[in-house]
Amino acid sequence: MASSSSLTLSQAILSRSVPRHGSSSSTNSQLTPSSLSLPTFSGLKSTPATSSFRRRILPSAAACRSPSIRASAAVETLEKTDNALVEKSVNTIRFLAIDAVEKANSGHPGLPMGCAPMGHILYDEIMRYNPKNPYWFNRDRFVLSAGHGCMLQYALLHLAGYDAVREEDLKSFRQWGSKTPGHPENFETPGVEVTTGPLGQGIANAVGLALSEKHLAARFNKPDAEIVDHYTYVILGDGCQMEGISQEAASLAGHWGLGKLIAFYDDNHISIDGDTEIAFTEDVGARFEALGWHVIWVKNGNTGYDEIRAAIKEAKAVTDKPTMIKVTTTIGFGSPNKANSYSVHGSALGAKEVEATRQNLGWPYEPFHVPEDVKSHWSRHIPEGAALEAGWNTKFAEYEKKYPEEAADLKSIITGELPAGWEKALPTYTPESPADATRNLSQQNLNALAKVLPGFLGGSADLASSNMTLMKMFGDFQKSTPEERNLRFGVREHGMGAICNGIALHSPGLIPYCATFFVFTDYMRAAIRISALSESRVIYVMTHDSIGLGEDGPTHQPIEHLASFRAMPNVLMLRPADGNETAGAYRVAILKNKTPSIMALSRQKLPQLSGTSIEGTAKGGYIISDNSSGNKPDVILIGTGSELEIAVKAADELRKEGKAVRVVSFVSWELFDEQSAEYKESVLPAAVTARVSIEAGSTFGWEKIVGSKGKAIGIDKFGASAPAGKIYKEFGITAEAVIAAAKQVS
Amino acid sequence: MASSSSLTLSQAILSRSVPRHGSSSSTNSQLTPSSLSLPTFSGLKSTPATSSFRRRILPSAAACRSPSIRASAAVETLEKTDNALVEKSVNTIRFLAIDAVEKANSGHPGLPMGCAPMGHILYDEIMRYNPKNPYWFNRDRFVLSAGHGCMLQYALLHLAGYDAVREEDLKSFRQWGSKTPGHPENFETPGVEVTTGPLGQGIANAVGLALSEKHLAARFNKPDAEIVDHYTYVILGDGCQMEGISQEAASLAGHWGLGKLIAFYDDNHISIDGDTEIAFTEDVGARFEALGWHVIWVKNGNTGYDEIRAAIKEAKAVTDKPTMIKVTTTIGFGSPNKANSYSVHGSALGAKEVEATRQNLGWPYEPFHVPEDVKSHWSRHIPEGAALEAGWNTKFAEYEKKYPEEAADLKSIITGELPAGWEKALPTYTPESPADATRNLSQQNLNALAKVLPGFLGGSADLASSNMTLMKMFGDFQKSTPEERNLRFGVREHGMGAICNGIALHSPGLIPYCATFFVFTDYMRAAIRISALSESRVIYVMTHDSIGLGEDGPTHQPIEHLASFRAMPNVLMLRPADGNETAGAYRVAILKNKTPSIMALSRQKLPQLSGTSIEGTAKGGYIISDNSSGNKPDVILIGTGSELEIAVKAADELRKEGKAVRVVSFVSWELFDEQSAEYKESVLPAAVTARVSIEAGSTFGWEKIVGSKGKAIGIDKFGASAPAGKIYKEFGITAEAVIAAAKQVS
Repeated sequence: MASSSSLTLSQAILSRSVPRHGSSSSTNSQLTPSSLSLPTFSGLKSTPATSSFRRRILPSAAACRSPSIRASAAVETLEKTDNALVEKSVNTIRFLAIDAVEKANSGHPGLPMGCAPMGHILYDEIMRYNPKNPYWFNRDRFVLSAGHGCMLQYALLHLAGYDAVREEDLKSFRQWGSKTPGHPENFETPGVEVTTGPLGQGIANAVGLALSEKHLAARFNKPDAEIVDHYTYVILGDGCQMEGISQEAASLAGHWGLGKLIAFYDDNHISIDGDTEIAFTEDVGARFEALGWHVIWVKNGNTGYDEIRAAIKEAKAVTDKPTMIKVTTTIGFGSPNKANSYSVHGSALGAKEVEATRQNLGWPYEPFHVPEDVKSHWSRHIPEGAALEAGWNTKFAEYEKKYPEEAADLKSIITGELPAGWEKALPTYTPESPADATRNLSQQNLNALAKVLPGFLGGSADLASSNMTLMKMFGDFQKSTPEERNLRFGVREHGMGAICNGIALHSPGLIPYCATFFVFTDYMRAAIRISALSESRVIYVMTHDSIGLGEDGPTHQPIEHLASFRAMPNVLMLRPADGNETAGAYRVAILKNKTPSIMALSRQKLPQLSGTSIEGTAKGGYIISDNSSGNKPDVILIGTGSELEIAVKAADELRKEGKAVRVVSFVSWELFDEQSAEYKESVLPAAVTARVSIEAGSTFGWEKIVGSKGKAIGIDKFGASAPAGKIYKEFGITAEAVIAAAKQVS
Repeated sequence: MASSSSLTLSQAILSRSVPRHGSSSSTNSQLTPSSLSLPTFSGLKSTPATSSFRRRILPSAAACRSPSIRASAAVETLEKTDNALVEKSVNTIRFLAIDAVEKANSGHPGLPMGCAPMGHILYDEIMRYNPKNPYWFNRDRFVLSAGHGCMLQYALLHLAGYDAVREEDLKSFRQWGSKTPGHPENFETPGVEVTTGPLGQGIANAVGLALSEKHLAARFNKPDAEIVDHYTYVILGDGCQMEGISQEAASLAGHWGLGKLIAFYDDNHISIDGDTEIAFTEDVGARFEALGWHVIWVKNGNTGYDEIRAAIKEAKAVTDKPTMIKVTTTIGFGSPNKANSYSVHGSALGAKEVEATRQNLGWPYEPFHVPEDVKSHWSRHIPEGAALEAGWNTKFAEYEKKYPEEAADLKSIITGELPAGWEKALPTYTPESPADATRNLSQQNLNALAKVLPGFLGGSADLASSNMTLMKMFGDFQKSTPEERNLRFGVREHGMGAICNGIALHSPGLIPYCATFFVFTDYMRAAIRISALSESRVIYVMTHDSIGLGEDGPTHQPIEHLASFRAMPNVLMLRPADGNETAGAYRVAILKNKTPSIMALSRQKLPQLSGTSIEGTAKGGYIISDNSSGNKPDVILIGTGSELEIAVKAADELRKEGKAVRVVSFVSWELFDEQSAEYKESVLPAAVTARVSIEAGSTFGWEKIVGSKGKAIGIDKFGASAPAGKIYKEFGITAEAVIAAAKQVS
């Protein structure tokens, strides 16, 4: 019964995501993963990083054609796979990439041609996965941080037997509606873990994936049951290395000692503008050693299969540090006239050069052909993968029997099913509850959710005490305490966002949050956009959300940020006004499991308002008070967040003067947009054009809500350094201004 | 005559910016700058970076009180200044910071208290500047990258005699309208070079400042006239070090060999969340060595004056590498109960602890008091500074006589006055000119401007051949060819933007441009915002500006970016449609000398349209064709950039059907906003509510232009990977859609 229960678990995820072919439960023999048949350590040593690293071995055409020359360099052979077949498989990968790019007349053949050897070894010899269930929980994760080289990954997924990438998918590379878009997209292609392309994001995602493994393993593994146990592999290129985000993430990976993170640095010395010598001469190996990584140099990434294997073995032996394997390759390896030049980076080779490359590598086959022996060799991954998953399912069934509570938590993390009744944990407030900053109210919610959501974890970019993000019942996730759930990101906003994307995409029930000042979303906007695009439920806890932060001044005061995120697709921008709305915002953020949410929260105290509610918040815009009848107020006052209080005050005054005034809280434009036309008309009737909005931010976009006859009160210039009250007054964000505007428009 | 001419030059700048006090020309004696009186090399060596770097020396209260104990550590003494006076000056700086933060009850006393020694030595002994002309061209530049510690800089500017920071300014720290805002702002406080606070920006600005010096020196210095010759100093903290942007900028600084960049890393081991051990354990020294920097460790930054002096001397002796001086300090040094803790980082000490600190440091004075001997000691900087500038003016006068052409160019760079007739260089086009991508047309403009603007320089983040940004008459700015003007930033968008801010703020006539794909403005948004806030004329050349880039897919296709920048204050967002508009956009970008501009440019070919013009572009929105009369078209079609062509096509069809159609190009919302109400009415008459806009981006904000009865055609979801034409069709960005909408609204 336990067994069937755990099978159900993985099958449930599978059935949600990909059509299954064959039953994974039918194969249950203990196949040895090929990763166990690695050669013994070949004497390769971690090479001290010096500037001589920069020397590279260029392939001669003769070397390409003659396996015997390569064999002399590769002193060891793999028992189960002869090198000629490996070579053939590697060339299959190269030509699948060449052919797909050629057919699309668009794409990046250079990286797949250079990285095919490491790609082959990873997917054919090292990684544990189940091609027929790309979402099997305990799979090894692979991230192609240099996402432009996606044909490498598509070729590997194809050979490994993933259903998402069949021959016809390779042939429709970069075409409308295909499963093989121009950069890897997790939401398009099962088997792709994260969305990459914007450089540096992938390595940071990989840090998030490896963090998740380390955390879950520490929480759930038992001396007699290693139920969480996988590696995270990533390939990154020179471009990723230059991006600051990769430095941020790598620094944290070293700090956290993510021993099961193994990064391959495709050191091909070529970027779009030519030789990396023109802009990138730092000693990358020495830098990573300074960051606390184990560094290995594979000098011949083009044909040094045993070097690559030995490096992986060495990397696995180092369990307290992440490993960077610098693999020197030739971009476009095999192309006689374009290899080692930028021209092979981002364009099709062209028919003539494709032919020359076929000649050079001795490849007689038609485009997209996978030779039978290669096909046959790779075919074992389907039964092996099924066996791996089945073995794990058996293990999980035993675990569940012995540790039912832990198993229930882990199951919730694996499936993403929220524990029953979790919403009851959310705090509620009355107008009599004490005034408080929404950042503090946010912390009450975070702490409430931490108790009921097993996959809830997060932290701040060195502003925990300002963002109010500590979960008080937990300690810090650190190298030696990975079971804890408070993450300390340091002042690294961009890396933080991308790491959270990795966490969110590791398992459906992991719900990461991360925090900084709202204005510093500018530092992490590229990661937030990837959250939105890749459907990662990351909760961005963004405090100090306006001029209300006061003295720190314009560098710290967001003005245009609300508008800038309202314009971004698939982001839920929430600006709660008080306790109930903050709770309502967290409720929606948890429920929207394919959408990141951004909470804009105040530094300053705000009163608990009458009429606010969790239910109202879910609608995005709703009436919190109204003394009109027949859906015909004289004027509608619309506020968000800290300015809703001002709208309420203005309404009180106007009502004293006999006006029929409706006050609408507009906590989230996106949620309001989702409502029925009827509901919208009940809140903002078309006939009532007398509308005034107030928000301490850019008025850009507000015409949509207040109409051309209404008035938007806001701030369309940079802020100022002074006490908050003074700035509000000087900038005209006041009840008096609302009253004046209301009289003007009604 | 030459002399008076060069005096006029610096005075002209001065008079534009700050009121002058006394005449700098009256003092002409050759005073020896105190930097020349440094002690001989003390034997301090560049320390190999190891993890033992992390040990720090904590001050005992006794050590604080007893100068004799410190004297034993400081083996050398400065000839001209006795250490007791230095100590007093350092404590003056500390207490000015303490008192100002205390009075404001807001601010960051910790850094100024820890960094006062290095601050004192820099401003009193090392730096060359003229307090009465903060804009003197050849001054040393100082950047406080850890901008929250701005009271350090305000105290130093005050002591040095800058007019912007008088005692009353210190007393109005962080108050409305003061010259001493919560973070350093160049546009508020003459003497502050750049705007900092958002961490990591300042060190990248400093790289831009140092690059500018190296470039101008290489271009203009002669064997007999070193007319450009200054250092750039920067203080950065742990927070700056953690930010990816600082890694990007530091990697480039090492690559470029910016030998006159000297960075002080305030290694105080404390960030807001507590000890940096919780998130920052990398070996910073080793990392910088890997980046090609010279690294020195000053172990006692609290009282080791001679160590600091010797380190600066060593740094200056290394001319082919930038130097990082890691200065171990105690945050809040002198505060008996709060030093070395995060509580002293960002809050006032409180009256009790201020008193305890006064006791501890033996400071009997009233708040804000500068002891007479300290005042007298610092007072020499006014005559010395005047002499330095006068000496330089004499030198420049000689230079001008010998090298009139170079002097004219340099003068234009120094003053920002554009050479007469520069606008004539801009290319113009007719409808018969060949269709072309605006990125290519942009390159024609860049190359035209490069010939006429001596201070024009820039480059791309490894996309020069895609962004089309190379200036063909120049080579690459590199370590050994610093006189060249094509900058190679590598894949480092954020660093690139901030470096360009530094270049723009180095001299009024330096006009930097930088480039990447438009979507990757997300990586550099924080730097762009600083451009806007700090009034830096940086030109952002952003190509591949829509789904029109095609196959690269949604990670590379901007959607919300136009809206997000239209919402940002003081940014000129320009989206030209063809050659004339591209030229017009560059013209405006050059003329708006206190505003950054963003060019959104197409990857795909666009026709040269009838009716577009440089003059029209300057108005932001203008009529390019109209068959109506009496300012009463049946419908107004509004397009931007690559979609203006679609509006034109739709108009042609509608006119065939007898409609009176106006086509408006809306190349820049900000420029249109600046026009008179009358002009606006002539383009978009209030009576004509039948309006259709088309833009391949978010419709967010377009209600303002098309009104509630109009229709905005755009894209409110993420893009797709496919050939561009296919995506346009599938997303409904077509003439057919415009025609249908026009019929619907009119």
